[in-house]
Amino acid sequence: MTNRSTPPTFDENFREHFHDLLVWRRDVREFRPDPVKDDILDGCLQLACQGPSVGNSQPWRFVHIRDQDRLNKLAHYFKDENQKALSDYDGEDAAKYARLKLSGLREAPVQISVFADTNTTAGKGLGSRTMTETKVYSVISAIQILWLSLRSHNIGLGWVSILPPDKMAGLMDVDENWVFVGHLCIGYPVEQTDIPDLVKKNWQKRLPMDRFLLQR
Amino acid sequence: MTNRSTPPTFDENFREHFHDLLVWRRDVREFRPDPVKDDILDGCLQLACQGPSVGNSQPWRFVHIRDQDRLNKLAHYFKDENQKALSDYDGEDAAKYARLKLSGLREAPVQISVFADTNTTAGKGLGSRTMTETKVYSVISAIQILWLSLRSHNIGLGWVSILPPDKMAGLMDVDENWVFVGHLCIGYPVEQTDIPDLVKKNWQKRLPMDRFLLQR
Repeated sequence: MTNRSTPPTFDENFREHFHDLLVWRRDVREFRPDPVKDDILDGCLQLACQGPSVGNSQPWRFVHIRDQDRLNKLAHYFKDENQKALSDYDGEDAAKYARLKLSGLREAPVQISVFADTNTTAGKGLGSRTMTETKVYSVISAIQILWLSLRSHNIGLGWVSILPPDKMAGLMDVDENWVFVGHLCIGYPVEQTDIPDLVKKNWQKRLPMDRFLLQR
Repeated sequence: MTNRSTPPTFDENFREHFHDLLVWRRDVREFRPDPVKDDILDGCLQLACQGPSVGNSQPWRFVHIRDQDRLNKLAHYFKDENQKALSDYDGEDAAKYARLKLSGLREAPVQISVFADTNTTAGKGLGSRTMTETKVYSVISAIQILWLSLRSHNIGLGWVSILPPDKMAGLMDVDENWVFVGHLCIGYPVEQTDIPDLVKKNWQKRLPMDRFLLQR
């Protein structure tokens, strides 16, 4: 990687590729078994930790899980929660929901649970007095950067939130006060596409930009 | 921008520039008055809306504020909250805090408040049953993508969270149920640097990676 003392410049060619990176990102549910090299994963995690954090509190905590018992329990937790979620739907939606593949917990070669250490003294509380939730927000930003960094190596990430947040610190044997943010399945995707799976499977289409932008 | 039907490839050259983008991002507090072109801002907002969202719920709502009365009130809100925050510190920390510049609310040419429409029916609740906060998380991801997209045009962004969340929907005259996520000051930065301001000003140094990574 470059080690520079003068600011970088970004040209139209870089921006076009960055555009492609964002448009072809995807929330991946189907993974190939090929392993992810440790140095690539480490490099991407280091970049994630270059993300912004409130007061520079750096509250992100990544738990890389290799223990098979923990992974099995995790898959069971997912199954239970997903069953409960399915029971919220009726008719066609229930049939559609049941057909969706919502996690790669059994296939993805890398499994990382992410927590926020909201009690960290780093940052001395700057910026989080009025909005205490900003420490968790910092962790989300880091995950997004990890996601894009992995994608730049053609590696996919799938964010699983259908898990019981209160049980996760216990399962991972980490500080019980850490806030569970999400579980990440990481590996090479079976398919590369610029269309979200939930669009493809007719669950939820993209909405027009005017829904998102207001002028005041 | 490219319009492709085959997946893009990302090479080492792209990854080096992307690395620079992340390392030189910064949370900007000092802006030049130069305007940001509408088409660049629109393009970056469109990319932000390509971000991941739980159930493809697309709950991000960007409020671009041009009304001077609103901007004045916003600056007053910030001043009040920042004064309260300052009162939490004593001695050297209080002196340091008072010297920090924590927002570009008066200078940045573009001001955008961001909300989450957590009641949206888009996505039919998929993925947000077990963790209702995931809709807000989707908005954070979009903000992070906006931030990086702007930086790829050499434009800076500063995230202001020292504001009263409960008053923001009212001030912006938007749905009172929308959740205020953060306020973004956007414009060309006075300085480009790879060192966070809070590191430079000796508020909070970077922590070693082993604090962030656990094996289980």
